[in-house]
Amino acid sequence: MPLQPRRTVDELRELQESTGDENGAQRVAWTETWERAREWLRGKVAGTGAEETVDAAGNQWFTLRGASDRAVLIGGHIDSVPNGGWLDGALNVVAGVEVLRRIAEEGKPPVTVRLVNWADEEGARFGRSLFGSSAAAGSMADQEELRARKDAAGIALPDALRQHGVDLDSALDARSELAGASAYLELHIEQGPVLESLDLPLGVVLGTFGVERHQVTFRGQAAHAGSTPMDKRRDALAGAARLELEIREIAKRTGAGAVCTMGGVVTKPGIVTSVVETAECLLDQRHLDAAKLAGMLDEAKRASEQYTRDEDIEVEWERIWNIEPILFDEGLIELAEESIREVTSDSHRLPSGPLHDAAEVARAGVPTVMLFVQSLRGLSHTKLEDTREEHLELAVQALDELASKTIERVRSAGEAG
Amino acid sequence: MPLQPRRTVDELRELQESTGDENGAQRVAWTETWERAREWLRGKVAGTGAEETVDAAGNQWFTLRGASDRAVLIGGHIDSVPNGGWLDGALNVVAGVEVLRRIAEEGKPPVTVRLVNWADEEGARFGRSLFGSSAAAGSMADQEELRARKDAAGIALPDALRQHGVDLDSALDARSELAGASAYLELHIEQGPVLESLDLPLGVVLGTFGVERHQVTFRGQAAHAGSTPMDKRRDALAGAARLELEIREIAKRTGAGAVCTMGGVVTKPGIVTSVVETAECLLDQRHLDAAKLAGMLDEAKRASEQYTRDEDIEVEWERIWNIEPILFDEGLIELAEESIREVTSDSHRLPSGPLHDAAEVARAGVPTVMLFVQSLRGLSHTKLEDTREEHLELAVQALDELASKTIERVRSAGEAG
Repeated sequence: MPLQPRRTVDELRELQESTGDENGAQRVAWTETWERAREWLRGKVAGTGAEETVDAAGNQWFTLRGASDRAVLIGGHIDSVPNGGWLDGALNVVAGVEVLRRIAEEGKPPVTVRLVNWADEEGARFGRSLFGSSAAAGSMADQEELRARKDAAGIALPDALRQHGVDLDSALDARSELAGASAYLELHIEQGPVLESLDLPLGVVLGTFGVERHQVTFRGQAAHAGSTPMDKRRDALAGAARLELEIREIAKRTGAGAVCTMGGVVTKPGIVTSVVETAECLLDQRHLDAAKLAGMLDEAKRASEQYTRDEDIEVEWERIWNIEPILFDEGLIELAEESIREVTSDSHRLPSGPLHDAAEVARAGVPTVMLFVQSLRGLSHTKLEDTREEHLELAVQALDELASKTIERVRSAGEAG
Repeated sequence: MPLQPRRTVDELRELQESTGDENGAQRVAWTETWERAREWLRGKVAGTGAEETVDAAGNQWFTLRGASDRAVLIGGHIDSVPNGGWLDGALNVVAGVEVLRRIAEEGKPPVTVRLVNWADEEGARFGRSLFGSSAAAGSMADQEELRARKDAAGIALPDALRQHGVDLDSALDARSELAGASAYLELHIEQGPVLESLDLPLGVVLGTFGVERHQVTFRGQAAHAGSTPMDKRRDALAGAARLELEIREIAKRTGAGAVCTMGGVVTKPGIVTSVVETAECLLDQRHLDAAKLAGMLDEAKRASEQYTRDEDIEVEWERIWNIEPILFDEGLIELAEESIREVTSDSHRLPSGPLHDAAEVARAGVPTVMLFVQSLRGLSHTKLEDTREEHLELAVQALDELASKTIERVRSAGEAG
């Protein structure tokens, strides 16, 4: 039986029906609903003959042994945020099941094919995203801190994991899973407006953005709004306002693909009768090119220092978080683009703003690529998240094409090696 | 015995010693400490022979009957904010006591002279400032609302007032107190940086600013900071930032005496990974000229509407509060300036940003003027509030000169009439 893309749509509806409610998807990792979703997935894969294993980090693997141990991985995550959408994460694994079925029907594949359902991509319960994939990638370095994390009900992370058969202390043993991996493929909804604005169903992801995230605090002097003449003020909000407008210019000068966001400002004392003494700004800058990202950060810092002189205020930069850009595999990007062009008229290359499990796998040195399918209105992490059914079907077809091409490439590389 | 300005400084220290603590002044109206301060004031005035009465709004009056019933009033307030300064309010009444002593020593004055200690200027406990003066001025119009007000401990305003002998329902009977008033004089610390920056001890106040106070809410669209290209954003914070910078230009174009303040911005969702959907800005605009104030408001509104077009966002203006400018008496302003020039080299005319009891009295039609004495670093409503002792002494001298000149003017106007 050939690929049945429509079945993926139907199965996604079925999953949403059985694990969601009127507020959206409820498949939060390390919960009973999540376990039911994993059980459901197990049932869907059963007919393919793929062997199920759960690794030390709780990742659920389905392995179709091939003529060679060299493995092509297809991955996703069935966990969701609370009140989430029906596609974020689940599309990847459910489409992967359909591809696995098609491959299994054709007999023993030339290379091993594995579907992986990563554990806790969203980090919704304990605030630690990419749990399973970072363990498998060997990049998880915060176990010490994770031991102390609690959920909203006060339950410690290690205790919750233990209930699902995972021992935090040995989670990094999941590293062995990537030993034979020659390629990693992931399909995801875009979660942004680019493909919709271009009227394209599918795009190839070039990699995940490098991120520089800072709290930028401007400090001036509180002063009475009525009795302090304009030229005697040291207004911290002026620094924040100028930076908010300047980061847009910085992104523009840096060119396409650069994004800078001031996501929030907290003003103190924050009352109508006082000039703002302190303005704490949350700044997020992203680029796929590490040098350009560093340049954007440098420009923002220099601008803020200019404001301290102009406005007689002070500024302090505190890094909240940063990550290097992670570039996907050039060869797989080309294969992905060919695959998309076989199922629809045109493709588009774009970076991923959000992080994905694919980024962890790529960091571990496995050649990786992602496909994005159009998101309606760019919405995700809400029950309003949606994608046209015909686009979902095209996405399953493109993933299937890409799997075929990748298997062939891995096979021939194996023969050559 | 002639005027002893040094005594005022000593008495202010004594008052602070007996009614303040290590955190500052604690003479919050409608408290036991405030009653003790009033009792202390009563003791200080006792020797002058002035007759004490407390009106229906709790204002404490000391009346030195003159040859004529036409009255010159000197006013202030002994109440403070919690952890307040030693001068805000108290300077006015304690200096007034010294002036009253000088006048009383000289025998029956040609016109009646009254010192008034207004009740609850600060509104610190119930959030209703200018209580006593607005009752006396007849401009108190919010009794209905005041009845429902509670302090932080849940005690209702009418109950607290009753404990201090004031019945909210008849507070407006205090109006009769202003019946014979021909002039009102008030000395206050500047609470701003203007006189200090001019290196002048004293200034004449032209009136109190008109105020337009609005919440300006910009609404855009929350969107992922990583996946939303710059040109697809509807960033509410951009509107807020542009308005923050534009109000400074509006004030500059309007000219000296104009002030515009964005005192706070609240951003929602306010997280580092999202473009700002809603930015709620607190805007305060002030001017002594009603037409210019209206013009500043209009300019800010038009600017914000331009931003809605440029940024594809929405804006909503909601008035929080407004008040017309209140101008002081031109004749008294001239007398005040002459008085200052008799005790020090130069004077300066300036508007008052903060409201004062004097504004209520002026609104009631009583010719009014205020003297400002320099504030160090413009600080008030904090224990750091301070003024040089030699400046306080000059202020007492200037108030005394002004009282003499005003009494003479009211006397001669009475003869002419």
